Amino acid sequence: MKRMLVATTVAAMALAGSVMGQDAPFAMQIKARQGIMEYRALNIGVLGAMAKGETPYDAAAAQKAADNLVMTTMIDMSMLWPEGSDHSANPASTADAKLWTAEADVAGKDAAFAAAAKAMQAAAGGGLDGVKAAMGDLGGACGGCHKVARIPK
Amino acid sequence: MKRMLVATTVAAMALAGSVMGQDAPFAMQIKARQGIMEYRALNIGVLGAMAKGETPYDAAAAQKAADNLVMTTMIDMSMLWPEGSDHSANPASTADAKLWTAEADVAGKDAAFAAAAKAMQAAAGGGLDGVKAAMGDLGGACGGCHKVARIPK
Repeated sequence: MKRMLVATTVAAMALAGSVMGQDAPFAMQIKARQGIMEYRALNIGVLGAMAKGETPYDAAAAQKAADNLVMTTMIDMSMLWPEGSDHSANPASTADAKLWTAEADVAGKDAAFAAAAKAMQAAAGGGLDGVKAAMGDLGGACGGCHKVARIPK
Repeated sequence: MKRMLVATTVAAMALAGSVMGQDAPFAMQIKARQGIMEYRALNIGVLGAMAKGETPYDAAAAQKAADNLVMTTMIDMSMLWPEGSDHSANPASTADAKLWTAEADVAGKDAAFAAAAKAMQAAAGGGLDGVKAAMGDLGGACGGCHKVARIPK
């Protein structure tokens, strides 16, 4: 029992240490949310390449990419966006502080992205035309948030 | 209709561009998987801080963190680990090429992590003792993969 507790404590310390040991404000939150965005971009890239005709339409691959996108809308990301974790606090982030204003309506834009991902999920396996048709709303939903809450490049 | 197609094409090009425009081999895959690992670390950190007594036990917060961990085990990450996307291909990664050998048994270690996350999910809301007890297996499951498939620091 004592041995288990020691092992537990050591593991917990190592984990807590990695949280405490972040070398810049919000470093872990920024890295985590950027990674999830990158995962979204990779999956949208699969669908976009088919829509553009760069890669042949593949129903299974399209469906998988769309399923993956929907999965990302089900992840609880609340802990990744603490107020103040924008570009001014840490230049690794491209988030604009407007993100936390009511006018930005990030929750509404999140919901729009989730709806567009669901529409793509419903269409993706049914043919290239469906992918193309769903792509506009999906791209628009990405841009919806990026336009208001991301600093210009 | 034409306008929609143009918008679709523009969105698809922008998305495909972000995929093609990666400045180093496997940059997007590495960023995405590291971000998801960071999300795991943040959630394990919540549980670890409680197990260590650094923060008071909070049943709802513990449950949420454990639920989040389980969610990460349900994400399809197959596209994020293309063979060869290790440290030798891109120093941003700490993955060791051993990852893709049968002996490393990464699939088995993934399954062990998923089982440990599920056990934490079952225990997390039921009291601090349950969190502490589940922490050992969870930390061990992280280490299981890291020890064989991550380059030494």
